Amino acid sequence: MSNKSCGTSRIAGCQFTLYPMSDKFVDIILGALEEVDTSKVWKDTDDVSTCVRGKMTHVFDVTKAIFLHAAKTGDHVAMNGTFSIGCPGDTEADAYMDEADEPLNEEKSQQISQQAGCKFSLYPMGREDYMDAIYKQIDLSKHRNVEVSHAHYATRLDGDVKDIFQALHQSFDSVQEKVSHVTMTFAISANSPSNQA
Amino acid sequence: MSNKSCGTSRIAGCQFTLYPMSDKFVDIILGALEEVDTSKVWKDTDDVSTCVRGKMTHVFDVTKAIFLHAAKTGDHVAMNGTFSIGCPGDTEADAYMDEADEPLNEEKSQQISQQAGCKFSLYPMGREDYMDAIYKQIDLSKHRNVEVSHAHYATRLDGDVKDIFQALHQSFDSVQEKVSHVTMTFAISANSPSNQA
Repeated sequence: MSNKSCGTSRIAGCQFTLYPMSDKFVDIILGALEEVDTSKVWKDTDDVSTCVRGKMTHVFDVTKAIFLHAAKTGDHVAMNGTFSIGCPGDTEADAYMDEADEPLNEEKSQQISQQAGCKFSLYPMGREDYMDAIYKQIDLSKHRNVEVSHAHYATRLDGDVKDIFQALHQSFDSVQEKVSHVTMTFAISANSPSNQA
Repeated sequence: MSNKSCGTSRIAGCQFTLYPMSDKFVDIILGALEEVDTSKVWKDTDDVSTCVRGKMTHVFDVTKAIFLHAAKTGDHVAMNGTFSIGCPGDTEADAYMDEADEPLNEEKSQQISQQAGCKFSLYPMGREDYMDAIYKQIDLSKHRNVEVSHAHYATRLDGDVKDIFQALHQSFDSVQEKVSHVTMTFAISANSPSNQA
């Protein structure tokens, strides 16, 4: 069974919000956006959240880069959102699927070292065996650079932001290869004072 | 088909984070928590998120009250999270299911008027007809006090925070009556400067 029934890459998306816990939240958000090249994704922002759509590699590249550039300010920043692919109610609109695969922000992202904590949950849709899909496809033991623990409703990852996003990306990617419609929620937090006791 | 196979109420939960976009974020969070009676839910907080578990009515009562008391400060505050019920991987632990149904924070919440914008998505799990479950069970037209619009991956609600949470609660409740395992993500935002142009 192939999910790529249309013969092309599938549209991935992420609906997320960046939350700087600071009076300077507007500057931190705009400053991060200024450092990130979003030209390979469709992007729309309102007062509640930002939506990016396009090839999966660019959706993860842009989301990770925005969080990294906000977190490197040293302020307590968090990001919360949902990745999605293959929703039957989705349209072909609002996606830049013809872009080349090379991620635009990888080089700059690699220069930022930033620890964070993240909780995520995977939701393979429309399958009675969805719990198996979750258990079988996610082998987080491969990600030696992130510490994995379990919480109610979520899996927690601790480590460098780049390693966390790599684990998120690979988990999402491996499940969507088997299940057409997948969503993945995540909440990531850096520079929290409650983590510096 | 009944979901209440154990003959008792089912454990509901919410994994959420409150995000005050302010240097005073710690005071705003602690201040809101001080005003909210959480004694009818199990609660656990770390640097990434808070988890509350118990009867559905109390989980919504507490989550709504925490957001309301934080938003009434006038600062830009947001909350992002996932409601969940019926996860087959869930345990019976960490829930206070013997509490009486009367919500503890309703009276105080009713006294707060606060406009907000919210995006939410419902995910009925383990069912091939899950899109029908979403379309059939959610009749947001009943909620005359909230403005309903559609975004990629989400439905947007605008109105008073209490009306928004009522619409969330009723949508979640009506889907979980038909589908055993349901999750619902939400992002709600109040006092955003980008909404005061």
